[in-house]
Amino acid sequence: MTKVDNTQIPSPLERAMERLTLVKVGGRIVEEPETLKQLLADFSKIEGCKVLVHGGGRSATAMAAKLGIESKMVNGRRVTDEEMLKVVTMVYGGLVNKQIVAGLQAIGVNALGLSGADLNYMRSEKRPVKDVDYGFVGDVKEVNAEILADLIRKNVVPVLAPLTHDKNGNLLNTNADTIAGEAAKALAKYFDVTLMFCFEKKGVLMCETDDESVIPELTPSLFEKYVTEGMIQGGMIPKLENSFEALNAGVKQVVITRSDLINTKQGTNIHI
Amino acid sequence: MTKVDNTQIPSPLERAMERLTLVKVGGRIVEEPETLKQLLADFSKIEGCKVLVHGGGRSATAMAAKLGIESKMVNGRRVTDEEMLKVVTMVYGGLVNKQIVAGLQAIGVNALGLSGADLNYMRSEKRPVKDVDYGFVGDVKEVNAEILADLIRKNVVPVLAPLTHDKNGNLLNTNADTIAGEAAKALAKYFDVTLMFCFEKKGVLMCETDDESVIPELTPSLFEKYVTEGMIQGGMIPKLENSFEALNAGVKQVVITRSDLINTKQGTNIHI
Repeated sequence: MTKVDNTQIPSPLERAMERLTLVKVGGRIVEEPETLKQLLADFSKIEGCKVLVHGGGRSATAMAAKLGIESKMVNGRRVTDEEMLKVVTMVYGGLVNKQIVAGLQAIGVNALGLSGADLNYMRSEKRPVKDVDYGFVGDVKEVNAEILADLIRKNVVPVLAPLTHDKNGNLLNTNADTIAGEAAKALAKYFDVTLMFCFEKKGVLMCETDDESVIPELTPSLFEKYVTEGMIQGGMIPKLENSFEALNAGVKQVVITRSDLINTKQGTNIHI
Repeated sequence: MTKVDNTQIPSPLERAMERLTLVKVGGRIVEEPETLKQLLADFSKIEGCKVLVHGGGRSATAMAAKLGIESKMVNGRRVTDEEMLKVVTMVYGGLVNKQIVAGLQAIGVNALGLSGADLNYMRSEKRPVKDVDYGFVGDVKEVNAEILADLIRKNVVPVLAPLTHDKNGNLLNTNADTIAGEAAKALAKYFDVTLMFCFEKKGVLMCETDDESVIPELTPSLFEKYVTEGMIQGGMIPKLENSFEALNAGVKQVVITRSDLINTKQGTNIHI
């Protein structure tokens, strides 16, 4: 009798995982009908599994102003009092999210809009008051990625709004970059995840005033070198620190690029 | 050899279907924190599979007024122009829906908020202009209940906002009673569905001025009799016609009751 060589059959864990691309786009792109349409068309062309994370800060600020509510920002983060929480819940969870979902469905992408409360996929805790009281802002504590992974495997494309919940009935405002990073890390258990941060530049720039000076690749040692030399500075430093954190937590690749370049090889590729 | 009697084994189609209760609640109840809390507590106690459908008209009217947008109603239905569509998308899809979802998650119900665009579960077409131009209002054309049924079987509780989409990228405002009826009919293929319409009275009243004069049971012949005798009139007639339509399409039972009575036997039971 011939012996069956089981070593040739890969175990489920050894099998190559399916690729998943998680794209985070900021407010400016999703808030104008024309740029949104282009973004959704580009996004729909990404092969394999995908997830979209969106902001909406400009719309929230505009809606708050119309309602006579002043927007207060500290260190680039929105201070979210009770009235502002209602505004972001409406704008992020309703207006922006549902328009994206309807736009994706129109081009054959089976989108599903989610706040962290939906399916309890992302639980957070209200940020403790230290120097600044950010109000109803949530720091992520738990991501239940399994139910998302199940849906993604059925060709559903989650569209994540920058809202979480504390599982005590309260919604909380959470930065879209954070949502993207935390979702990417949790989904890395199930997929081979590429995390793409889209912003208005073509990538991380060597020289802030030269839009063409994109750094093509970044590793921890290159990052350290560029920071020491003062080429990378300001708000880009925490963004990149978060990227390395995601890579250390199992995300395969992080790309920083412009939203119209998501299907090209352009942008800054970050790896460890 | 003993013959196996296969007739004793029910086929999948013959097996008793799982029970599903679909509760529709109007705006008044979901818009006040106290009544909402009680409703969610009562709803969570319903045994078996469940779905919640909510309105939000009062909040939409209030938000529109704050934004300087006038609410126009014709035959009890909201005229939805472009600005009003944004308001209902924010209020129904964002504010009301996400607060309900967070409230249910807090008491251990795995809620998932949905507009018709999410998972493309309910497609509609913009209502043709006849005597009245209702604007961005959708008449339901297609319900994809299978993906909902899949989620429901995994203990997910869909929370349906009164919004649909046309699959061309446009969200449309759709009456919550219609959403409830259409979802109930489509889910009747997979579950033994009870559809509960909650309103401010204990049931269909024999005499409009006597809140205790609840008609305990209605059949098509009793309905016809009461209409002829003038006991049932006005807006209750289309509500009951819709109920009989749902029953004819496979829904097992329709109940009209008050939201605090959903776990009792009180209210009007409608059957064919």
